[in-house]
Amino acid sequence: MITARAIEGLGEIERGADLAALIVAAGADLQEGDVVVIAHKAVSKAEGAVRLLSDVRPGARAHELATEQARDPRLVQVILDQSRSLIRATHGVLICETTHGFICANAGVDLSNVEAGTAALLPVDPDRSARRIRESLAHRLGVDLAVVVSDTFGRTWRNGVTDVAIGIAGIAGVVDLRGTPDATGRVLEATEVCIADEVAGAAELVMGKDRSVPAAVVRGVDPSWLRRGSVVAEIVRDPAGDLFR
Amino acid sequence: MITARAIEGLGEIERGADLAALIVAAGADLQEGDVVVIAHKAVSKAEGAVRLLSDVRPGARAHELATEQARDPRLVQVILDQSRSLIRATHGVLICETTHGFICANAGVDLSNVEAGTAALLPVDPDRSARRIRESLAHRLGVDLAVVVSDTFGRTWRNGVTDVAIGIAGIAGVVDLRGTPDATGRVLEATEVCIADEVAGAAELVMGKDRSVPAAVVRGVDPSWLRRGSVVAEIVRDPAGDLFR
Repeated sequence: MITARAIEGLGEIERGADLAALIVAAGADLQEGDVVVIAHKAVSKAEGAVRLLSDVRPGARAHELATEQARDPRLVQVILDQSRSLIRATHGVLICETTHGFICANAGVDLSNVEAGTAALLPVDPDRSARRIRESLAHRLGVDLAVVVSDTFGRTWRNGVTDVAIGIAGIAGVVDLRGTPDATGRVLEATEVCIADEVAGAAELVMGKDRSVPAAVVRGVDPSWLRRGSVVAEIVRDPAGDLFR
Repeated sequence: MITARAIEGLGEIERGADLAALIVAAGADLQEGDVVVIAHKAVSKAEGAVRLLSDVRPGARAHELATEQARDPRLVQVILDQSRSLIRATHGVLICETTHGFICANAGVDLSNVEAGTAALLPVDPDRSARRIRESLAHRLGVDLAVVVSDTFGRTWRNGVTDVAIGIAGIAGVVDLRGTPDATGRVLEATEVCIADEVAGAAELVMGKDRSVPAAVVRGVDPSWLRRGSVVAEIVRDPAGDLFR
């Protein structure tokens, strides 16, 4: 059985906040093998990965795109600053490849649930963020947990967003079942399951509609998935094998 | 809290099997408001949505694609028969738009966990399949449940597959939070969450590595998501708004 429970009572996350300390102070019930899922916005706020739009001087490309897409040129500049490449620009949305290699709307830059006039960025290194929270929780609680930093991504051909993993620590991104015989004895062709995204999605179901609850605990994942040294790059498709860019 | 539990003991699913009866006979603990998630392959087997490859006469297009992609031409013919259009063909995979409008590898046609020499198709009308199972469970148990028929899809820019909803009954596909104020009072721009896919993914986490357990119960979803009349077409992106085809 898998359970997902919201971690309530974290309060508003301020810059410099110690998320592990807040989670422990909130009295979250955490056991060995649990996966703590934290919405990236809490991590970004704590790490100060936030831009004040009034500080941004948009360049020519940002002005051009902003006019074309009817967006604030300062916001567009912030999005471009977070991007390695722009994949598509349409319907007011910039589909970007982020500096981390994720392909998502607006390079993950988001105005919701942040102070007016500011934009939340993705953490600079979400795996490092996850590792630090994991280490701090282990230190404080004496138990070995996994941590997933999540964000909300759209999908190419499906309506609606789902939460996915953008940083991981202590849990695999993808579990490779290639070569495992199925129930009929046939060797499976390709069954690399992205369990980290499924865990992030399960956590989203309890995080509350308005995302005011930025963390959840997922309990009961297969212990073989709890792998040290896992990195979210496992989930980022190699551009060379990418058919839709 | 959300929980996901595997429904064990369904045994091998034969053509003509009554899945609702099997689930009840397996002693699955089911309550009002639960979501029963069933892997489509169980549904396809029960409904006879299976092709015997030796019965298939591949056409010219199938032969051509099969040579190009190093696949069995009979299997390619089955895939084309299930497709409205072919989006990409590469690395031995045909990315197809199925007759239902889903875009996925090989039009959902699958050789794993089926008898040798046969290929499992997607159900003809997965919403109808979900509705029938839901009605039969309601009749047998006297409780109102939701049903999700799931399949395993790849994603454009992310490694690893995840389970998604291909048929729904009694649960929304997408929950529209557009216009809902966030925790800071700002009105959210676009937060249509595909909760049906997140529920399918949560169920996958307990369905067992080799997919030999084809069903799970997800308990604790927000009651406002349990909507009669929901159809999976909510999740299928309108080709007109599709940037990556």
